[in-house]
Amino acid sequence: MTAPPRIGVVGAGQLARMMLGPAIELDLPLTVLASDPAESAAVVAGRVRTGRHDEESAVRALATEVDVLTFDHEHVPTAFLERLVTTGDVQVRPGPGALVHAQDKLVMRRRLTELGHPCPRWWHVRGIEDLDRALAENDGPLVVKTPRGGYDGHGVRIIERAEDAADWLEHHGELLAEQKVPFLRELSAQVARRPGGQSITYPVVQSVQRDGVCYEVVAPAPDLDPDAQQRIQQLAAAIAEDLDVVGMLAVELFETAGREVLVNELAMRPHNTGHWSMDGAVTGQFEQHLRAVADLPLGGTDMLAPCAVMVNLLGGSAPELASGARAAMQADPGVKVHLYGKSVRPGRKLGHVTVVGKDPEQLLARAHRAEKRIIDGPDAMEENP
Amino acid sequence: MTAPPRIGVVGAGQLARMMLGPAIELDLPLTVLASDPAESAAVVAGRVRTGRHDEESAVRALATEVDVLTFDHEHVPTAFLERLVTTGDVQVRPGPGALVHAQDKLVMRRRLTELGHPCPRWWHVRGIEDLDRALAENDGPLVVKTPRGGYDGHGVRIIERAEDAADWLEHHGELLAEQKVPFLRELSAQVARRPGGQSITYPVVQSVQRDGVCYEVVAPAPDLDPDAQQRIQQLAAAIAEDLDVVGMLAVELFETAGREVLVNELAMRPHNTGHWSMDGAVTGQFEQHLRAVADLPLGGTDMLAPCAVMVNLLGGSAPELASGARAAMQADPGVKVHLYGKSVRPGRKLGHVTVVGKDPEQLLARAHRAEKRIIDGPDAMEENP
Repeated sequence: MTAPPRIGVVGAGQLARMMLGPAIELDLPLTVLASDPAESAAVVAGRVRTGRHDEESAVRALATEVDVLTFDHEHVPTAFLERLVTTGDVQVRPGPGALVHAQDKLVMRRRLTELGHPCPRWWHVRGIEDLDRALAENDGPLVVKTPRGGYDGHGVRIIERAEDAADWLEHHGELLAEQKVPFLRELSAQVARRPGGQSITYPVVQSVQRDGVCYEVVAPAPDLDPDAQQRIQQLAAAIAEDLDVVGMLAVELFETAGREVLVNELAMRPHNTGHWSMDGAVTGQFEQHLRAVADLPLGGTDMLAPCAVMVNLLGGSAPELASGARAAMQADPGVKVHLYGKSVRPGRKLGHVTVVGKDPEQLLARAHRAEKRIIDGPDAMEENP
Repeated sequence: MTAPPRIGVVGAGQLARMMLGPAIELDLPLTVLASDPAESAAVVAGRVRTGRHDEESAVRALATEVDVLTFDHEHVPTAFLERLVTTGDVQVRPGPGALVHAQDKLVMRRRLTELGHPCPRWWHVRGIEDLDRALAENDGPLVVKTPRGGYDGHGVRIIERAEDAADWLEHHGELLAEQKVPFLRELSAQVARRPGGQSITYPVVQSVQRDGVCYEVVAPAPDLDPDAQQRIQQLAAAIAEDLDVVGMLAVELFETAGREVLVNELAMRPHNTGHWSMDGAVTGQFEQHLRAVADLPLGGTDMLAPCAVMVNLLGGSAPELASGARAAMQADPGVKVHLYGKSVRPGRKLGHVTVVGKDPEQLLARAHRAEKRIIDGPDAMEENP
């Protein structure tokens, strides 16, 4: 095999955007499929095709001009992908048989449970009586999720009475209900896997959500003993193997008071909890995803510093980020700023900052100072020191 | 100031190409001016304008659509740039008054000497009798250089008799002659400088040339004592200040047996001797150049490991690099591969590898093993272990 594979990315959000730099350095030709030419990756990519991820003709048109198809998100209907796979003209990575576990939370729970991987207690809810039973069996409120289409807190509701999910049940026909896990903290484990099965794990990280959106990540997770870290990495690698994932897999986990972990969500792509690796690991997750889906040998995941911290830039009071980014760079030359080129809306993911060093608390303080300056404008820190 | 400045890069070689990733992350809109759409940066950039660097209309057309003009190389006629500066419509960084010192080696030698910065002994040669005099005054062979247009060993000749440069003298009218410095090794100092004068230096590196082309770099330069390092950094910063450089400046130096340094060449752009910083420093030189020319606060230059090594990929016996790159990645997951998307010709700069860690000798061995696999093909190491 000589020529490097041409890669098509379905979707043109910030994840596709952050693949562009590594694709350039590895000389992997990359085309993004954007539903709108103003999308985050589309405004900067060298090769852009316009079309929607949920229009089969658009996905097929992209597939005809690349060797490998991969994804910015998990919302491409697997039926399209299954038909593409049967043509044999393009490699779909991750394949539809893996991807369905990141698309459909019921399929994911059923499969992980069959495989013996640790999950919160869960119920497949097909009617109001199932919800009543689940509430009776569970000690406390339930987390109810739409099986498909949820992200960043959308499609998730906490209920104490069955009626509180009756509208969703009517609309979706079935739901996933889970015990609300009284977790100590959330962890996340990233693993990359190639078609032949080679895989490599990243250090397990600690993540903090805000309003259902990833907000802050510390790598490695503080005070996680080496045995636990290894067990979690093995769990993530086992899930990647069991589900035949190709590319990056993020396993989001709850750590309980008993120091056990339970799988919360799966994402089969670079994930927000892995952004730290762009600046904090030998191989960032975007390069790693490309290497995996291109079936290139995987890169090392050693950290470049004892600790790395990532804080998301979620839309705040500043109408644009350039002024605040300038102030943040001025205040701290060690902070790395990543902007996604998106217009500001409150709470929207607009970018992230990372900083590497030794002490997690100090790094978090630096990252949050930069965050505040960027999302609330250059005067934010003077007003709210 | 709110919107980030739009940046135009004259030239579309690998230096422009390596600016693309950082420009995306910083959300700085970047357009490259390519004489051919197949050039290294043109094939991957989102915004490309076609036109030659030595056609004033092409440079002006780029200037009309950007806020800041910068360069992939130093061969743009300064007369064009001076006329652009007088319009006031675009910032030219570095400006023509600085850039001329990287274009014209006679102007550079004269200016550095006036400023008292250490240079090899040199002569301005306007006729054969000047060469005879220089040869008589100098103890040993002379290095003769065409004042303009040289790069990577082109435009440099070592002579022992005046007749050996007679053809050049006739063609160019004047030449620069320099003593051939009996150096211990070559060093290089990178410094970034903003329009207002803020500057920051990188650790001084050791470089090895092969056939006049940068081949191998070790950062920081081994066995360079802290005082010498600081003196050299101060020298580089002083040159940047004295010449009013904006952007990255590389000062290539000879280190003599007496541990003195003499300035060899200047480059006012990201330079091959600074490529290690992409993977080995908090802020890589391509991001730093963009920050400087966009007048953003400069980034930290701390190293991410005690040592970083860079080895160039110069065209070898393999007709393409993808197979060898795959083998190199397989053999060493810690090596970072950067490919420029250029067709293979013997000796041509096609990419580079970097590796970071502790021991320079071990890192060099790893980098050269990767280099051999990539430029001579995957079987190279088995044949020549």
